[in-house]
Amino acid sequence: MQPTKYTPVLQEIAREVRPIVLRYFRSELSVEIKEDNSPVTEADKRVEIKIREIVARHFPQDAICGEEFGGEPGDAATWIIDPVDGTKAFVCGFPLFGTLTGIMKNSRMVAGMISVPVTDELWLAEESGATTLNGVAVQTSRCRSLSAARICTTSPDDFAAAAWPYYQRLAAACQMQRMGGGCYAHAMLASGHADLVVEYGLGPWDFLPLIPVVEGAGGIISDWAGQPLNFHSRGDVLVSANAELHASALNYLREYRY
Amino acid sequence: MQPTKYTPVLQEIAREVRPIVLRYFRSELSVEIKEDNSPVTEADKRVEIKIREIVARHFPQDAICGEEFGGEPGDAATWIIDPVDGTKAFVCGFPLFGTLTGIMKNSRMVAGMISVPVTDELWLAEESGATTLNGVAVQTSRCRSLSAARICTTSPDDFAAAAWPYYQRLAAACQMQRMGGGCYAHAMLASGHADLVVEYGLGPWDFLPLIPVVEGAGGIISDWAGQPLNFHSRGDVLVSANAELHASALNYLREYRY
Repeated sequence: MQPTKYTPVLQEIAREVRPIVLRYFRSELSVEIKEDNSPVTEADKRVEIKIREIVARHFPQDAICGEEFGGEPGDAATWIIDPVDGTKAFVCGFPLFGTLTGIMKNSRMVAGMISVPVTDELWLAEESGATTLNGVAVQTSRCRSLSAARICTTSPDDFAAAAWPYYQRLAAACQMQRMGGGCYAHAMLASGHADLVVEYGLGPWDFLPLIPVVEGAGGIISDWAGQPLNFHSRGDVLVSANAELHASALNYLREYRY
Repeated sequence: MQPTKYTPVLQEIAREVRPIVLRYFRSELSVEIKEDNSPVTEADKRVEIKIREIVARHFPQDAICGEEFGGEPGDAATWIIDPVDGTKAFVCGFPLFGTLTGIMKNSRMVAGMISVPVTDELWLAEESGATTLNGVAVQTSRCRSLSAARICTTSPDDFAAAAWPYYQRLAAACQMQRMGGGCYAHAMLASGHADLVVEYGLGPWDFLPLIPVVEGAGGIISDWAGQPLNFHSRGDVLVSANAELHASALNYLREYRY
């Protein structure tokens, strides 16, 4: 694999998607509520269509799997797309939503990005190199103890009732917690500002594109049992700045049973 | 009172404070944990010192009351300062923190601002005019039913255990909720993107500067019993886009007893 095979295309996606998202952001958009009770906007659909166009132009043989229009992994590479991660943030006018795109080959994520249109920040990673933020390499923090750790999650809403106390016990062992992160929390972990991110109930498009970004910055990402994530994972996710912190955090989560 | 008496000084504060905050944001700063277990950074102190300098230059007779260096209301006007609202966001690298400054006269808030340095957004209000965002008038939403409302709060952490279920019942009656707002949620409400903000355990510097911003945009702000907020309020705050929504939300909160 060429080290920069996907990078220019991911950059193109971020560049092309940004004006589309910004046109809809804080405008009079009609928000639909989906069957799973999550909101979706016209922006979600337009962005996914644009990304599908770009991928089809560069890699016509690849499969595409997106949050809005579905799809299944293929035999060649599969592009995993979350057009607007953090739709609630988007809908409430907060700038902390992002476009996620990742590329999966033989069930392994080989490249990924988090693009945040409002702040014009792009976290990019290919498995061969370090994660970059707008072209500059980033690194996870060296925080190795829970008592000094900054933990992020998005909202209690997203957790099963039985799962939430597991998060709470872990958060209580940390120095501070912050909510409302979505993909931005993972970006902050990659950049060394947050030390742990715990999520529950994510779809594959929510977490697969994050894997190269987190790992390329030195972080660890797994499910709550410590197992690697794949397309069929249930969506309980633990992300840590380093292996020591990951091991400590897992002690609080691995007893949880679905 | 002249309609623009305080506006130029609030603008000067926002302009002067911005580079100070941005110098510390995402840098190697040492975070202290205060007695109340909340974090404080060097940026908080520097910003408050700068604001105190600016106020003393323009209004030497006024009193100043700030989160970091204290102070009590005086007989003339009193400036109420939260140098960095959303310190946890700041410390975790999230751009959604802000500098709050408000002016109180005869126990009434006559002007206020929310300045968000990273996004370069300034919400400004004097009691004589409409709230503006970077000079353009903003207005709260016309959402009048809880079932269509977007509700924001910062974190369950900030609530007394007995108070949290009151918020939860209200949030469950709304269309969607978003966490992690801090002052940004109030700004989003003033701009019409969020419909309700519920907070608990705030200090006077956290909520007093918001009053003119919310009211100047058409919103309603009170404590959980529906009473007007003042310097000695306990810090349980309900902010609504309009009176109908406020009345509906109060039904969920007013039974709470300290």
